Amino acid sequence: MQVAFLGLGTMGAPMAANLAKAGVALRVWNRSEGPAARLAEVGAEPAASPAEAAHGADVLIAMLADDAATKAVLLDGGALEALAPGALLVNMATVAVAFGASLADQAERCGVAYVAAPVLGRVNVAEAGELNILAGGRADAIDRAQPLFDVMGRKTWRFGERPEQANAVKLAVNFMLASAIETMGEAASLAEGHGVSGADFLAMATSTVFAAPAYQGYGAAIASGTFEPAGFKLSLGLKDVRLALEAAEAARTPMLFAAVLRDNLIDGVAHGEGDLDWAALAKVAARRAGRL
Amino acid sequence: MQVAFLGLGTMGAPMAANLAKAGVALRVWNRSEGPAARLAEVGAEPAASPAEAAHGADVLIAMLADDAATKAVLLDGGALEALAPGALLVNMATVAVAFGASLADQAERCGVAYVAAPVLGRVNVAEAGELNILAGGRADAIDRAQPLFDVMGRKTWRFGERPEQANAVKLAVNFMLASAIETMGEAASLAEGHGVSGADFLAMATSTVFAAPAYQGYGAAIASGTFEPAGFKLSLGLKDVRLALEAAEAARTPMLFAAVLRDNLIDGVAHGEGDLDWAALAKVAARRAGRL
Amino acid sequence: MQVAFLGLGTMGAPMAANLAKAGVALRVWNRSEGPAARLAEVGAEPAASPAEAAHGADVLIAMLADDAATKAVLLDGGALEALAPGALLVNMATVAVAFGASLADQAERCGVAYVAAPVLGRVNVAEAGELNILAGGRADAIDRAQPLFDVMGRKTWRFGERPEQANAVKLAVNFMLASAIETMGEAASLAEGHGVSGADFLAMATSTVFAAPAYQGYGAAIASGTFEPAGFKLSLGLKDVRLALEAAEAARTPMLFAAVLRDNLIDGVAHGEGDLDWAALAKVAARRAGRL
Amino acid sequence: MQVAFLGLGTMGAPMAANLAKAGVALRVWNRSEGPAARLAEVGAEPAASPAEAAHGADVLIAMLADDAATKAVLLDGGALEALAPGALLVNMATVAVAFGASLADQAERCGVAYVAAPVLGRVNVAEAGELNILAGGRADAIDRAQPLFDVMGRKTWRFGERPEQANAVKLAVNFMLASAIETMGEAASLAEGHGVSGADFLAMATSTVFAAPAYQGYGAAIASGTFEPAGFKLSLGLKDVRLALEAAEAARTPMLFAAVLRDNLIDGVAHGEGDLDWAALAKVAARRAGRL
Repeated sequence: MQVAFLGLGTMGAPMAANLAKAGVALRVWNRSEGPAARLAEVGAEPAASPAEAAHGADVLIAMLADDAATKAVLLDGGALEALAPGALLVNMATVAVAFGASLADQAERCGVAYVAAPVLGRVNVAEAGELNILAGGRADAIDRAQPLFDVMGRKTWRFGERPEQANAVKLAVNFMLASAIETMGEAASLAEGHGVSGADFLAMATSTVFAAPAYQGYGAAIASGTFEPAGFKLSLGLKDVRLALEAAEAARTPMLFAAVLRDNLIDGVAHGEGDLDWAALAKVAARRAGRL
Repeated sequence: MQVAFLGLGTMGAPMAANLAKAGVALRVWNRSEGPAARLAEVGAEPAASPAEAAHGADVLIAMLADDAATKAVLLDGGALEALAPGALLVNMATVAVAFGASLADQAERCGVAYVAAPVLGRVNVAEAGELNILAGGRADAIDRAQPLFDVMGRKTWRFGERPEQANAVKLAVNFMLASAIETMGEAASLAEGHGVSGADFLAMATSTVFAAPAYQGYGAAIASGTFEPAGFKLSLGLKDVRLALEAAEAARTPMLFAAVLRDNLIDGVAHGEGDLDWAALAKVAARRAGRL
Repeated sequence: MQVAFLGLGTMGAPMAANLAKAGVALRVWNRSEGPAARLAEVGAEPAASPAEAAHGADVLIAMLADDAATKAVLLDGGALEALAPGALLVNMATVAVAFGASLADQAERCGVAYVAAPVLGRVNVAEAGELNILAGGRADAIDRAQPLFDVMGRKTWRFGERPEQANAVKLAVNFMLASAIETMGEAASLAEGHGVSGADFLAMATSTVFAAPAYQGYGAAIASGTFEPAGFKLSLGLKDVRLALEAAEAARTPMLFAAVLRDNLIDGVAHGEGDLDWAALAKVAARRAGRL
Repeated sequence: MQVAFLGLGTMGAPMAANLAKAGVALRVWNRSEGPAARLAEVGAEPAASPAEAAHGADVLIAMLADDAATKAVLLDGGALEALAPGALLVNMATVAVAFGASLADQAERCGVAYVAAPVLGRVNVAEAGELNILAGGRADAIDRAQPLFDVMGRKTWRFGERPEQANAVKLAVNFMLASAIETMGEAASLAEGHGVSGADFLAMATSTVFAAPAYQGYGAAIASGTFEPAGFKLSLGLKDVRLALEAAEAARTPMLFAAVLRDNLIDGVAHGEGDLDWAALAKVAARRAGRL
């Protein structure tokens, strides 16, 4: 099975490396050249263009920055058309539900099977091949991708026959993360308003009823006020919450927490915090209370 | 050490039972008689009134339903005045910060030491003596209560010299719980809006990044639509969120998530859901999306 | 008809003066002495205490600062008890609905008829005797007060047999005013975000579809950034919005705009703007956009 | 001066008719044929296509349904390209700020002057030639359009040199209208929660401090529960609020009222109220209070 992998960024590079190390025949491409060269060291074959990478591939995996980059590379860049009919396209990036649906349409028009498979987990999880993979698409298509998913992730969760359903799930999870950050920011702000150390408060909450990875990681960042370097930029968080709201509107679903999050994330961007980690959402809460 | 325990409700009964079983000399009182009689079976001595229970006690523990009950029993009922100067009052109920502060004033006037010590954990945790105890008050006062806390809980967290600081912390935690419920409700509603099973979605989220007790318990209730019997009534959740908002206003702290929660909890009460478990907040999200 | 008037503040003084000038036999009292002395110049008789003013009066009008002052003067201060059975109490202050209801109970216990009659209009309107009077109470009781209302106001609106219904109406109007301010603040902030003068924008909006007194007055304040002296303090606005939310919760009515207003007013107070006119709510919008 | 007018819908038809009646040489086009035929009766010349209408025109006025229709007719349909360099394009529809900016770019590329001039006022106002016209663009370009604006409107307000600034202003006004509706809905709901007739309450509010056209019109609709036929559909209101939020995000401006409005409008659409007048936003408030 010949696999093409497009997009060797923070997440894509370790994911592709794990495939190469597992012996998968891999052609890779990235907008800038360095990452592809590094992948060559573990056995991948650099390609000069998306289309060249895709040509003759059985499976094309895309892990590009956002909707625009995905569109530019897969559609405008000719990668999708370079696939043979019957090939499989797997998009693992976090994209809009509407864009995911249009990608599904385009793939069908080209006779290409299509699976959306965004992932949960940060770089270290990707390196360890322990990602949670959120898959949407026809069962037979996901089955074809499963051996590759098993290399990159610890578990694949299947959410529906339409690929974009996985995009909705991923956006819902990212909304939940933003919501957890905001919740900790407000709660810590309340505690501090009464003279309690926010750090002490968060240490207690995240080691008892909120002893979950999401709360512990972001809780520690908030407690220590460490928002750089950004694991996930606040401006990207704003983008994902906006995509969640768009997906919600398309499904006629009110989501007031998401609406508040969008508003507070814009407050953060307006105060020059767009490049900080989105845990800095807690700064908005503190600022509004006059404590920054 | 003679200990009086007032309030043998769902939580108070197992907490007092653990003290009695540990050999603490215990006088107990409850508004209705049954619970005190049951406590007698494990060695506690029923008292005819709050004041009788308090008379001559070194430590008075109160675990009453709410601010009104606490005021009725401790202040109007004469329990506080029945304590000898130098005795210790420990209030373990969830009460308003402002009420907690006024209780501290009254205790000081009576020459009684005072500790606020609300708890985290439901009945089964109380039975196992594994509560997390959130303590506020002077260090020497908490030290005196510590042996009793060690019987009832697995860990005591100290948050400040003013007792009411512990009340603020407890309200902040309850806010976080409500927020987690709302977050799951909205996220599941988004997923269902795109044809994904909300139960499948929550199963994934609460076994990965949100693998915390709070998310798993409430997530399961939401996924299965099981809101009865109520572990914690939605109407009581509304009360606690209101108390959190009052505490926030006193500390000049905006808390928009809490404001939204209050609004949605009122929506629930308006639709006859006040006696359901507050996980039913997820029903409000579904109803607003026209899916109930 | 002998009338007692308690509370000669910014609003009470001109209202009482109009009654005195119209030939009403008037005994007046105020916490500080100056205002009563000035009323004497137009024919009113200063009283040494609330009870002295009330003694023998057919009608007692109260226009005190807030719930606490009203309680202190009417109940604790003995004014209500000093009224003869069959007398009429008219409370024209803006108070909580729950407090209004308890006042009605107390009046009934004393055999005193009771009308709640908060007013719309600022000082200049009060001086001109052009207030809008929002009346609640039994029709026969309001009928008795009507001649006095006709002196102080241009129109009396009747809203129900229970006096506190008028309190609910008054709080609903104040909520609408706060809402109009917030709306202009956000809209002007949007305009300015695109390089349009907020003042130009508000001048247009408030002379076309929003050509109402409320919009024009507050719009001009926002456009010119003039928030001092305060016509109505932001901290009092926060109090009234809180009372509206409490009244809403008692009636199981979600009010999300009110919840947002409360939050933003707290933001203002946290930034030291509590003594500014509540039009300064627009500053919160500008600050959140990073433009202050 | 030869004028082309594209889009003869509810608003466009009377606007074009006024121009024709004023003696302006007018070529008109509409997607369906009826309206153009009716315009011919007052002297306008029907054109077979947008491009034919535009060919040789000095001024092209577009009043199309939305962004998509405007793009389809002006850009894809060739109308813009059919204008001679130096001609003037006037877009009077309510469109997104970002789309307005891109239209400005396209016009510049074609050597065509461009003015955005959305309007305030409904059909009857358009018929009377009494619209308020919100103009953005270079002063000399607006000057060229001014004689036409004077026929269609009572006043032209100029907001900036960049045409899309007028689009931002129009969206800000529509946000204010939605906000007024929501405010009345919540206030009336509070009043009704206390047994006060919402209609009585709104009659009072909109004839006193809120005596503005916007409040009176929508207030009467809410009071009588008359949401059909729709003067402006709730689903279109949702679109405009969304466009306001997008414009706000582009300008890094938090707008929480707008966020709440979007959420409640989605609630309305989810309950099948998208085709009602957007005054039906008040139904959402009543429904949430359990009173529908």
